Amino acid sequence: MKAAKYTALVIILTCAFNLPCPVSAHSFADEMMATSQLNLMPVPASLQTQTGRLPITSSFSVLVKNYADDRLRSGIARMLRRLAGRTVLTFPAELATDESAATLVVQCDRAGEAVPSLGENESYRLDVTDKQARLSAPTVVGALRGLETFLQLVQGDRVGFYLPGIKIQDQPRFPWRGLLIDVGRHYEPMEVLKRNLDAMAAVKLNVFHWHLTEDQGFRVESKRLPKLHTLGSDGLFYTQDQVREIIAYARERGIRVMPEFDIPGHSTSWLVAYPEMGSAPGPYKIERGAGIFEPALDPTREQTYKFLDAFLGEMAALFPDAYMHIGGDENEGKQWDRNPQIQAFMKAKGIKDNHALQAYFNQRILKILQKHGKKMIGWEEILHPDLPKDAVIHSWRGPASLAEAAKKGYDGILSAGYYIDLIFPASQHYLADPIPPNSTLTTAEAKHILGGEATMWGEWVSPETIDSRIWPRTAAVAERLWSPRNVTDIDDMYRRLPVISRQLEELGLTHEKNYDMLLRRLAASENSGPLRMLASIIEPVKEYRRYQVRPQTMLSPLTGLVDAARPDSEAARQFASNVDAFLSDAPRFALYRPNLEHTLAEWQTAGRALGPMIDRSAALQEARPLANNLSAIAEAGLEAMSYLSARDAATTEWRNEQLAKLDEAAKPKAALEFVVITSVRKLVIAAVELPQLRTITPAEWKKRVTTQATARP
Amino acid sequence: MKAAKYTALVIILTCAFNLPCPVSAHSFADEMMATSQLNLMPVPASLQTQTGRLPITSSFSVLVKNYADDRLRSGIARMLRRLAGRTVLTFPAELATDESAATLVVQCDRAGEAVPSLGENESYRLDVTDKQARLSAPTVVGALRGLETFLQLVQGDRVGFYLPGIKIQDQPRFPWRGLLIDVGRHYEPMEVLKRNLDAMAAVKLNVFHWHLTEDQGFRVESKRLPKLHTLGSDGLFYTQDQVREIIAYARERGIRVMPEFDIPGHSTSWLVAYPEMGSAPGPYKIERGAGIFEPALDPTREQTYKFLDAFLGEMAALFPDAYMHIGGDENEGKQWDRNPQIQAFMKAKGIKDNHALQAYFNQRILKILQKHGKKMIGWEEILHPDLPKDAVIHSWRGPASLAEAAKKGYDGILSAGYYIDLIFPASQHYLADPIPPNSTLTTAEAKHILGGEATMWGEWVSPETIDSRIWPRTAAVAERLWSPRNVTDIDDMYRRLPVISRQLEELGLTHEKNYDMLLRRLAASENSGPLRMLASIIEPVKEYRRYQVRPQTMLSPLTGLVDAARPDSEAARQFASNVDAFLSDAPRFALYRPNLEHTLAEWQTAGRALGPMIDRSAALQEARPLANNLSAIAEAGLEAMSYLSARDAATTEWRNEQLAKLDEAAKPKAALEFVVITSVRKLVIAAVELPQLRTITPAEWKKRVTTQATARP
Repeated sequence: MKAAKYTALVIILTCAFNLPCPVSAHSFADEMMATSQLNLMPVPASLQTQTGRLPITSSFSVLVKNYADDRLRSGIARMLRRLAGRTVLTFPAELATDESAATLVVQCDRAGEAVPSLGENESYRLDVTDKQARLSAPTVVGALRGLETFLQLVQGDRVGFYLPGIKIQDQPRFPWRGLLIDVGRHYEPMEVLKRNLDAMAAVKLNVFHWHLTEDQGFRVESKRLPKLHTLGSDGLFYTQDQVREIIAYARERGIRVMPEFDIPGHSTSWLVAYPEMGSAPGPYKIERGAGIFEPALDPTREQTYKFLDAFLGEMAALFPDAYMHIGGDENEGKQWDRNPQIQAFMKAKGIKDNHALQAYFNQRILKILQKHGKKMIGWEEILHPDLPKDAVIHSWRGPASLAEAAKKGYDGILSAGYYIDLIFPASQHYLADPIPPNSTLTTAEAKHILGGEATMWGEWVSPETIDSRIWPRTAAVAERLWSPRNVTDIDDMYRRLPVISRQLEELGLTHEKNYDMLLRRLAASENSGPLRMLASIIEPVKEYRRYQVRPQTMLSPLTGLVDAARPDSEAARQFASNVDAFLSDAPRFALYRPNLEHTLAEWQTAGRALGPMIDRSAALQEARPLANNLSAIAEAGLEAMSYLSARDAATTEWRNEQLAKLDEAAKPKAALEFVVITSVRKLVIAAVELPQLRTITPAEWKKRVTTQATARP
Repeated sequence: MKAAKYTALVIILTCAFNLPCPVSAHSFADEMMATSQLNLMPVPASLQTQTGRLPITSSFSVLVKNYADDRLRSGIARMLRRLAGRTVLTFPAELATDESAATLVVQCDRAGEAVPSLGENESYRLDVTDKQARLSAPTVVGALRGLETFLQLVQGDRVGFYLPGIKIQDQPRFPWRGLLIDVGRHYEPMEVLKRNLDAMAAVKLNVFHWHLTEDQGFRVESKRLPKLHTLGSDGLFYTQDQVREIIAYARERGIRVMPEFDIPGHSTSWLVAYPEMGSAPGPYKIERGAGIFEPALDPTREQTYKFLDAFLGEMAALFPDAYMHIGGDENEGKQWDRNPQIQAFMKAKGIKDNHALQAYFNQRILKILQKHGKKMIGWEEILHPDLPKDAVIHSWRGPASLAEAAKKGYDGILSAGYYIDLIFPASQHYLADPIPPNSTLTTAEAKHILGGEATMWGEWVSPETIDSRIWPRTAAVAERLWSPRNVTDIDDMYRRLPVISRQLEELGLTHEKNYDMLLRRLAASENSGPLRMLASIIEPVKEYRRYQVRPQTMLSPLTGLVDAARPDSEAARQFASNVDAFLSDAPRFALYRPNLEHTLAEWQTAGRALGPMIDRSAALQEARPLANNLSAIAEAGLEAMSYLSARDAATTEWRNEQLAKLDEAAKPKAALEFVVITSVRKLVIAAVELPQLRTITPAEWKKRVTTQATARP
């Protein structure tokens, strides 16, 4: 069923990209079925399966042809290490010298850009037959992308590991595919950044947007203005050597490193060191809260620009990327409003409002950046009639505002829809498109849309939890930005996502393993089973509600149940799908019945077991109402199932009682919410709607049940 | 039951150390029962519980009295971060200033040694009442030790987190308590070393023995002789800056860093760079195998000593520790035997054998080290009548040879019994004592026994698996070396070990979380349940058998089932204990019956489920015979249980058939072996021995069963 879906997609892609179409869809689908399912993410621009399979044995060898350099050889060595780790095979220590005997031949034409750049050619071809795999690419970066595809193609069965026969021609849809990591609010150690760079490379992302300064922390060493990092960072900053180490590490993987220095707002930590640059007298303290704060640089004084020239000049020399991000977001200008000098300046210059004042500031900064050889990029607040056209717009509002900027001639990238810190499911991010199907942009205008970036804002992530907030969902964003626009099958994305997620673990990512660890710690026990059951169907509250309902500071531990729980519950998705199948099977109600009963019984058992566990664990006290809710949800579901199985209609009193319990359970507690309520509501409503099945078709009946279940007061 | 055991221990300790004894054992035991169980490891020199409990709330604050420095403040900050993480509480950002309001008062007298040293005073007192905790120590290092005890005392229940009232007076039994990590055979990244230093500090170990050179790798940068690390390390070495970083990190935690440069054998990687220092002409290649190899430095040429003087002099300046380890082990002298020049030298100098030649070499090295201000330590092979008394002996043969050296006046440390790479259970290491109860050493001689070191030899560990080979078992070694000699209750050690193990996860240790990760990877599935069940009752083969039965090289991936499986199976220990209790309950056979039946049924189910899983996973092919064995073991156990439950004697034919199946299952496969065979043999033999219960007592019967079950052909 799912293989067929993927096959269909493959056919569309293959044909769409003018590659040789399979002779007939039928024979092609048969072939796909005969071989294994493909788990590529992002889906390549075009692919075509071939007969046969290439075995991976301990004699696996790689030959490098034409151009080769250390970056390519390191990339091959990393690929081999992962391949060996996954297959538990010991490969030859040296590269092959006999082309005909090599398992994989890698053929590059040239190094690619010395500094990874927006224009980098990332394309590659990969041709796998039962004899050999051949990877060719114009640049080393393209070859690195192809090596990731190679690893994703590896399959195994009782006979051994192999690659299916396949022909791939691949290149990205967008040239700018980024991940922002905010290290300002919470510092992240070097190894966190490195393993996330590895993960980015695995899904072909190519821009690490390093959000280095925030109200809550100034994270980069400045040799010219050392008070910035010494006073603004609690000692948690990256030395310039470390910055160079990250840049080199990213370059090895064909990833650009674009720094962000957020000004004129979001700058409290700068002003701790240099209060004289602020718009209010100070003194300033490192911010410990979350939210939008007032401190802003004073855009009316020449010393501010002298200071920024010194600092940004130093950073321009440190970071080789062509772009420098100046933030520019969320400056509400309250300090400006209250500063008579600033008000006088505006009056004298005829600057009519704060937005115009910030535009004045941005133009000054643009000149500084140009002097230091950098292109300016900023959040979309920087957009202003006076903004020169060579500034780049970073949209957090949406594709519409991005399109508007593009029509005015500005390059832009999209982050609206990719705010992974807001805990929305991958499916939601997956469908956000920088150039949506209804776009009215001309081809020339559309060229201004460079791509997008997932944004890992740092309020509520620690080194222990950040991976689980980024991965695996960001792989879906990566696919959106790399793959053809028509790759939008959510079910197939969710089929592939866990496979990719497990492969990310090979790179040291902790999104999976720290889940159990945090639960063990909370349960104060090795046997965290019931807690794991609860955690599997709850998610942190969405958007910015966490801080509202469970306030913490930047110094708070991020080790609560809300931190262990993850976005995008797979268990809930599976349950919802099974409930839908079960209700579609009306009036028989046999499909998935044992599965649903088993699941609900497990919840019931877990709900009961949680009480004593919570009694023993002080850290779980806030979970007690959730444990009670879990029991109530399970009981409502089990009772509904028993009505439906017996084809015995429930009463409206019973329904009302159950719905009331479910409404209570639906209220967030401890900044967590159940994500199975709607599914259980469906079961409850179905139980009372049973008699309707006599008068309407099962399909109509299911629709009626669903409508009622999803209607909220 | 177990609390009572611990209580008894506490009373012994308390009285033994001349602290005020509890008024009566009875009231004291009652008090222990009333409060919670203590999970301290190592057990302090003396402790006494007090009434009351000190609550840990979000107003938890620390005040520092008398002496304070950055090291102490950092230690307190680390303690607070872990306490916050465990309790999910946000504490005040600043240290307290009002002594009476502070939750914890830390009072130090002085900094302690500038460079952590053997003579460091590590003692502390900790007094916890319902009002306040007071930690006092002569040195900052003592305070750091006390802060670890403080964290281990934290308990929680539905009311909240707290510390039980307690008085502790603590100091180590031995001043040298080390962990050797061999980074020569497999390089370990900085973060692996750092998190292991954190774990060492958590269990009060104080020497990091950094085994930096091996046949398989030369891991430290030499600026004087850079070919050593550039040619001898595959690019995997520590820069001198990184060495300094590790030394500083260890010092922060009161841990010495003693380097080892293993000579004259184990030196292949040196000779890759400098073949002219070898005893055979070369050329040499970095060794990829495991075992004892022939290359050895040439001890007869002056250039060798000039070379070593330059290198060891450079290292003496880099490593501030007073001791330098020169290895000296496992040089079989085969290259010496074959080198005519060396033979001529020996003849000319009257050196009668290779041992004497190595003694000559060691004396030369000793002089070099003395010149550079270092004390020499080496493996016990260096012991020779000519060895000066200020050399230290590191014993891998056992306490007897150590005692012998002590009687001759040599200081020594023990590693025999602490070879954690050999996969023996913690209980075995736990009972190995540097000065065993039967020791005949005088008090003065015993003072030469400085302590011991657990040795993490690096043949079969990767960054992914090394933590699981070190922890939690090394915590038991740490207790042996710190706690009073009479702390030897294995059951109580195993009761506390999982608690300590979980706490180590707070420091980033991966011994627990990488287990599931490796199983997921092998299963190629999120649902690794059946594989986990199998892995829970198998262990890697012991001693040096792994390499014999499943040869690999240093370039092989360490991601097989043997790498995921861990030493010291808790499930097997639990099963054995339950089987014993069940058989002791003869002829009723009720005790633990449901538990045993459930466990055996789970094994049976897992055995069946493994087949299809193995069909899908190429990496699990070597596990297939184990899966079949698992089913056979489960069936033998279940059938035996059903005979016993029905009090229906089995036939000898049946028994022979089962024992044959178990003998087959007992054979190692994939370098793994079941550790539940003896327990299942007991059940099988019990089933056939049932009629004997008519003629002998249940106790005699159980002994008879046990004797037969443990007798091996």
